[in-house]
Amino acid sequence: MNAAHLPDRSCRAEIIAVGSELLQPPRQDTNSLYLTERLAGVGIEVRGKAVVGDNRAELESMLRSALTRAGLVILTGGLGPTDDDLTRDAVAAVLGMPLVEDAAVVQQIRERFARRGAVMPEVNRRQALVPDGAVVIENRHGTAPGLWIARDAQTLVLLPGPPGELRPMFDRVVEEWLAPRTGADRVYRRLLRICGRTESEVEEAVFPVYGPWAAQAMPIATTVLTAPAQVELHLSVRAEHAAAAGARLDEATGALIRVLGPDVFSVDGQSLEEVVGGLLRHGGQTVAVAESCTGGLVSSRLTDVPGSSAYVTFNAVCYSNDAKVRWLGVSAETLAAHGAVSEATALEMADGVRNRAGAQIGVGVSGIAGPTGGTDTKPVGTVVVAVTSAQTRVVRQYRFPFTRVRNKQFAAQMALDLVRRVLLGVDPGPAFVVRP
Amino acid sequence: MNAAHLPDRSCRAEIIAVGSELLQPPRQDTNSLYLTERLAGVGIEVRGKAVVGDNRAELESMLRSALTRAGLVILTGGLGPTDDDLTRDAVAAVLGMPLVEDAAVVQQIRERFARRGAVMPEVNRRQALVPDGAVVIENRHGTAPGLWIARDAQTLVLLPGPPGELRPMFDRVVEEWLAPRTGADRVYRRLLRICGRTESEVEEAVFPVYGPWAAQAMPIATTVLTAPAQVELHLSVRAEHAAAAGARLDEATGALIRVLGPDVFSVDGQSLEEVVGGLLRHGGQTVAVAESCTGGLVSSRLTDVPGSSAYVTFNAVCYSNDAKVRWLGVSAETLAAHGAVSEATALEMADGVRNRAGAQIGVGVSGIAGPTGGTDTKPVGTVVVAVTSAQTRVVRQYRFPFTRVRNKQFAAQMALDLVRRVLLGVDPGPAFVVRP
Repeated sequence: MNAAHLPDRSCRAEIIAVGSELLQPPRQDTNSLYLTERLAGVGIEVRGKAVVGDNRAELESMLRSALTRAGLVILTGGLGPTDDDLTRDAVAAVLGMPLVEDAAVVQQIRERFARRGAVMPEVNRRQALVPDGAVVIENRHGTAPGLWIARDAQTLVLLPGPPGELRPMFDRVVEEWLAPRTGADRVYRRLLRICGRTESEVEEAVFPVYGPWAAQAMPIATTVLTAPAQVELHLSVRAEHAAAAGARLDEATGALIRVLGPDVFSVDGQSLEEVVGGLLRHGGQTVAVAESCTGGLVSSRLTDVPGSSAYVTFNAVCYSNDAKVRWLGVSAETLAAHGAVSEATALEMADGVRNRAGAQIGVGVSGIAGPTGGTDTKPVGTVVVAVTSAQTRVVRQYRFPFTRVRNKQFAAQMALDLVRRVLLGVDPGPAFVVRP
Repeated sequence: MNAAHLPDRSCRAEIIAVGSELLQPPRQDTNSLYLTERLAGVGIEVRGKAVVGDNRAELESMLRSALTRAGLVILTGGLGPTDDDLTRDAVAAVLGMPLVEDAAVVQQIRERFARRGAVMPEVNRRQALVPDGAVVIENRHGTAPGLWIARDAQTLVLLPGPPGELRPMFDRVVEEWLAPRTGADRVYRRLLRICGRTESEVEEAVFPVYGPWAAQAMPIATTVLTAPAQVELHLSVRAEHAAAAGARLDEATGALIRVLGPDVFSVDGQSLEEVVGGLLRHGGQTVAVAESCTGGLVSSRLTDVPGSSAYVTFNAVCYSNDAKVRWLGVSAETLAAHGAVSEATALEMADGVRNRAGAQIGVGVSGIAGPTGGTDTKPVGTVVVAVTSAQTRVVRQYRFPFTRVRNKQFAAQMALDLVRRVLLGVDPGPAFVVRP
């Protein structure tokens, strides 16, 4: 293969995922997400993607259409040994290339079976059929070889569907074949995570900042994503040099932090539990959590972080009032006077678990996850979070309008965020109501 | 509109999602999953789907291509008020229909703004442009109206991108316009969930059972999906009558249970924690969990189920050895002799939390989630689960080859499954090693 640059149109790619099962919800093509990321890294933009079933006429039609638009077409799946696996045949037909058996591929498949003490079934010979002129890409993790086909100004890449085979194969394709042929531009990214504002509040605050970026030199593309009680701003910029891209993204990140303040909890992709864990570790502190409505979710997220045993020793899930009294020392009088979902109870839960675990930071979470158990004054979705230390006592009340599991997710996120704010010594933010 | 049946090709649909942001990972088109389900419910099969950016030439090319294959083409997104919103223009151009302003739509948008005390910006007039001859579908949740276009033997439906607008609008389209025009067949589904076998073990066991179904009268389509320590078999059948479909699916489910036995934990979509919760509730029993490596995940999953306060009162996360001794009464001798990750310790954790919580069932989970902390004899991924009651003491050891969070997920699933088997009085299954 010549190391010529790809023609300009080749920097525009389309992806076709082949397989009837990919059209059956809840199945979905996820290979294209990986391919898009990897292609962006070498300056190739995915302009369109499609999913088609195991139907040769439909696949051929989609492929013909893609070839009118894209310089690089990547097909995934449909390279197995059965009659349902039609990608090889469709590509050969559309390009007018005869299929020929590649003896070296037959040999590789035979050896792969032999290594597992098996004999290659005859049906697997189909996987050695190659459009005449295609270059075989070795599959080190399965029997279906990949194929690289250069035709006039266009390139087709055929990849096996299983992610465990596709990913390592495509990594080699990108590094050895695509990167040397693409332009010098690469895509650089930055991810900001925000807690304490809704998506529309974030948009309203940051639009005046990021709006103009798209029209500037070295334009920054911005995508907004949401997770429970979390908004993500994904920034990306295309540039020749990492230093210039980094400076541009630093400047953009700084401008966003100026309007969003400490609601931005991470600018490097760290999760909230990683940020909290880092702060605890840095301060040499330990945390203990007493959970009612979140049922262990705060504790589970804290311990998702490698090395969290340095700052987590004992957490308690006290679902019943009796457990709150016996295991946390919450007073029966407090429960009787204020109820389990109250600032007084949450504070006693936080203090109780902190003292019993000998931790510096205590967290108490109590609420009504739903769907039943609400009252007029404390409707479903009411959650109280308390964070206490020897120096601080902070308590906040929230109201979430979601289903049980989603209310738990929001409550756990707000609890972790309150710990973060207490550790940082910043404004713990207001109590609030989230509207659906 | 005449209530004529859709032409045969109309039972083949394609979906085109429009929006450059949908091509930016980790964003993904999920509307098509909803549309596919709803269409299947009225016997319309989605044969292909595509995503294209906000580029008119590319969108027109994809639409032209789809119209060569499908009787029904659904376009989602690109109906907003800005210059980037190109779906109306592209459809009008491809079909050769002039765009005209619909006065009634302008009025509706104006009123929508007025209800929020705002004046309609002039830019929103774009949303009232309608290909001449299209039928407007009212948007009760936003400003972009949907469009229904019948042309010769084909139908196009344009829907707004936000799921909160698309879903209710499409529900009306399906009920009022599509269902009366499609054939009598509907799709009926069954979901079996399995724990205790890998995907390939399930496939090997059930392929002789489901393989022949596709070729029989009333063929059953089978899709296999996996989640941590869980395999799902999705069965679907197309039939005119619910009773016939139900009988066919009952028969199929029975045949699968005959080969998979009690590894099938649910045939109605219930999660493992729902099944365990149902068994506890049915038996009038309570459960208490002591977690080390899972860090609260078992407890959180148990309390994801509405009404779980009937059988969960107190669970403990004891991450340190000291906490295991102090809070669960695990003996220091056991920890010294066997270590924290051992059958003896897991059993004492289960007994300890059970006695302290006054529960009938105790669960202890101890392991090494990773990425560090492994030894030669107890490598990362080693997990011990104990389930005890006054009558039973069961303990199993597993070894998972995954990352920290995934090891936690597998461990929590196996713990819940062991509780299920103990409650059912069935074989608790072997200890085992999962290979990557």
